[in-house]
Amino acid sequence: MTAEIICVGTELLLGDILNTNAQFLSRELAELGISVLHQHVIGDNPQRLRELVAQAAARSDLLVFSGGLGPTEDDLTKETVAQAFGDTLAFDAAEWDKIVAFFARTNRTPTENNRKQAMVPVRGHKIPNDHGTAPGAWFEDGRGHCAVLMPGVPREMKAMWAEQIRPALEQRQNCTIHSHTLRVLGGESSIASKVAPLFASANPTAAIYCKTGECEIRVTARAATAAQAETACTERLAEFRAILGDAAYDVDVPGLEYTVVRLLREKGLHAATAESCTGGLVAQRLTGVPGASEVFGYGFVTYAETAKQKLLGVDPALIRRWNVVSGPVAVAMAFGAAAASGAELAVGITGIAGPGGALPGKPVGTVYLTGADARTGTGWLQRLALSGYGERAVIRARAALYALDMLRRMALALPVPGALPVTSATPAETIDL
Amino acid sequence: MTAEIICVGTELLLGDILNTNAQFLSRELAELGISVLHQHVIGDNPQRLRELVAQAAARSDLLVFSGGLGPTEDDLTKETVAQAFGDTLAFDAAEWDKIVAFFARTNRTPTENNRKQAMVPVRGHKIPNDHGTAPGAWFEDGRGHCAVLMPGVPREMKAMWAEQIRPALEQRQNCTIHSHTLRVLGGESSIASKVAPLFASANPTAAIYCKTGECEIRVTARAATAAQAETACTERLAEFRAILGDAAYDVDVPGLEYTVVRLLREKGLHAATAESCTGGLVAQRLTGVPGASEVFGYGFVTYAETAKQKLLGVDPALIRRWNVVSGPVAVAMAFGAAAASGAELAVGITGIAGPGGALPGKPVGTVYLTGADARTGTGWLQRLALSGYGERAVIRARAALYALDMLRRMALALPVPGALPVTSATPAETIDL
Repeated sequence: MTAEIICVGTELLLGDILNTNAQFLSRELAELGISVLHQHVIGDNPQRLRELVAQAAARSDLLVFSGGLGPTEDDLTKETVAQAFGDTLAFDAAEWDKIVAFFARTNRTPTENNRKQAMVPVRGHKIPNDHGTAPGAWFEDGRGHCAVLMPGVPREMKAMWAEQIRPALEQRQNCTIHSHTLRVLGGESSIASKVAPLFASANPTAAIYCKTGECEIRVTARAATAAQAETACTERLAEFRAILGDAAYDVDVPGLEYTVVRLLREKGLHAATAESCTGGLVAQRLTGVPGASEVFGYGFVTYAETAKQKLLGVDPALIRRWNVVSGPVAVAMAFGAAAASGAELAVGITGIAGPGGALPGKPVGTVYLTGADARTGTGWLQRLALSGYGERAVIRARAALYALDMLRRMALALPVPGALPVTSATPAETIDL
Repeated sequence: MTAEIICVGTELLLGDILNTNAQFLSRELAELGISVLHQHVIGDNPQRLRELVAQAAARSDLLVFSGGLGPTEDDLTKETVAQAFGDTLAFDAAEWDKIVAFFARTNRTPTENNRKQAMVPVRGHKIPNDHGTAPGAWFEDGRGHCAVLMPGVPREMKAMWAEQIRPALEQRQNCTIHSHTLRVLGGESSIASKVAPLFASANPTAAIYCKTGECEIRVTARAATAAQAETACTERLAEFRAILGDAAYDVDVPGLEYTVVRLLREKGLHAATAESCTGGLVAQRLTGVPGASEVFGYGFVTYAETAKQKLLGVDPALIRRWNVVSGPVAVAMAFGAAAASGAELAVGITGIAGPGGALPGKPVGTVYLTGADARTGTGWLQRLALSGYGERAVIRARAALYALDMLRRMALALPVPGALPVTSATPAETIDL
């Protein structure tokens, strides 16, 4: 099956908004095994709309529209598509009642224009909209081609897609589809090369999406039943995890901080943060997780040297001797944060986020990260070279990601690749990396 | 002049990446006074590409392409457009040398396929790419229609646009264009209603873009000379500022934290943060600004009650009596942070970010924010009702924005709308808002 996505809206043509609907629909259609050959954005001009619909309907099996269902006279998408698919529209009293009720709830009265929104296909059918005023529409011509019209507001469009359109298309494709997303630390090229054969599979499919310092691998299985699809997904995820090892940190979570908070809670542990160059980014990510207060109580943003001394007990002589951006200072920060907070685990981060501040032998992007475990007095020290990433924001984001991973690995008692084992008493001269 | 934007790339059709290029180009073309009537995304299929180019070239004055300039055999965009515009391509030795040198810098050797990238228009002209391997191309037919081909990588595309294409189009449009962006705190509807007449102007134009808790107003002036365009922009910005007052906080800055850091530096002031529900978000935004260390030394993320007590000196009896989410605790946090850090200005933030944790009379989204000025012992207390915004992330982001604005207003000695004047000695029972 081939498809075209048509987004209707002047605000898209003016660049006032980003077309996230097109990406969402493309991804979803790809998962359904439907090939998207064209995406279009077009305004409310009837002539141009008519030409585009005629072309698209002639060459593709499925047209997916978002936008153009509004109440104004310019919104002619439904009328135009009806005509192209040899259908007509009729007033639907039940939809009109819903629109009137929707307005009443927000103390408004619909205008005569809104009646347009209650017009529904005669041969095709309406698609209920439980999240807004305008119903969607489904048209079919005699040749098995069809067109689906949805609202342009992303929230309404996504809900209508998930609740009504996607299930109908699954039925048409005669299958059920399940997806899960595995999150993996590392860059796309290094990950993709390890698991390349698994990406070649036609079912389940796997797609990789690159984020800062990590990737998402989305595995999608098509099968006759939900249970079969779920099993196929789970088995494929296990294959990915077997190859990727502990760089693959979780499934279906929004980010690493969710995994860290869950692990700390499961293990009955608490974490504290001592941040210099990341300036509160690690604390902010941890506290972004609902319920983080169970496992996180203290975050120290020690940007000034006196703050490192007063709040974390870092010896000023240590800073003078080794520089504030150094292994010995990171170690003192992490163990100092654990002591000051009473948390079992703590991270200390000091580095040069740039653009200024480079030191001899320590370019912008040099970051020292320590994880301290107060239960054993042991920990890890890692020197990160994030110089290649240029931007201050990216260097900080990557350093924060490494810090979260340090907490994850300590909670799971996993080794930290590329890090040196340390204790609070390790002599400074041995950790001047 | 009318234009169509054509983005070439299978990864866009699969939804692997978001099409930010189309939005960027739409906005830029709108500013140039060029009407964008269509946006398309298409893959590397020669037949479909040929059809689309023929249609677009027949109906629009300008075709703007991004993507399709890669070295593989599939990348046929340049060849297809050359044919449609009655042009041919020839090997350009200088471009080839640049490609070889580019590869050499990264220790690689170009393949035979890369020679394709050194093919340039014979009647049209090449467009140098100073940020990647493939040069762009500019084609003209005999009727004044033209096509511009740029790389798909957003960084390369934007640089080529700004350095080469936009100036050429300005010349063609016989004008110079200047833009400035005013940032304004508040929601789109309240801002837009105040300044509606200014949006009706045809030159300078103004467009409003909504962000969390604030809006950008982009003012664009077209004029014969750069000086005239700049003057027209400046005058229009002054009109906006006169109406919007001190909610309009700065021009051409990435965000409020940049304004705060600049003001603190100008006034020789320092700021400290004491954050509970925002969990380090304010500190993280301040330290995201290069050079923030001059004005920011101490950030306290006091998620636990003991942290508020130990680090900020908040009396546990105060918390027991008024609850940790209360006016008296916010005031104690802010003055405690100022005292513990030695900073002249400090903010204290305690609230309920949700989804759990609602209290009688204090729904999710209730946030107490205090600004303290250690020089005078005075400050402000504000109770924010962010309940309508639902999501934890949005409540935290809005609370952080208010905290940054509190710092801005204190640095400028501006009053804080809706806030109560307090001192460190204000009796708690009078500030239980």
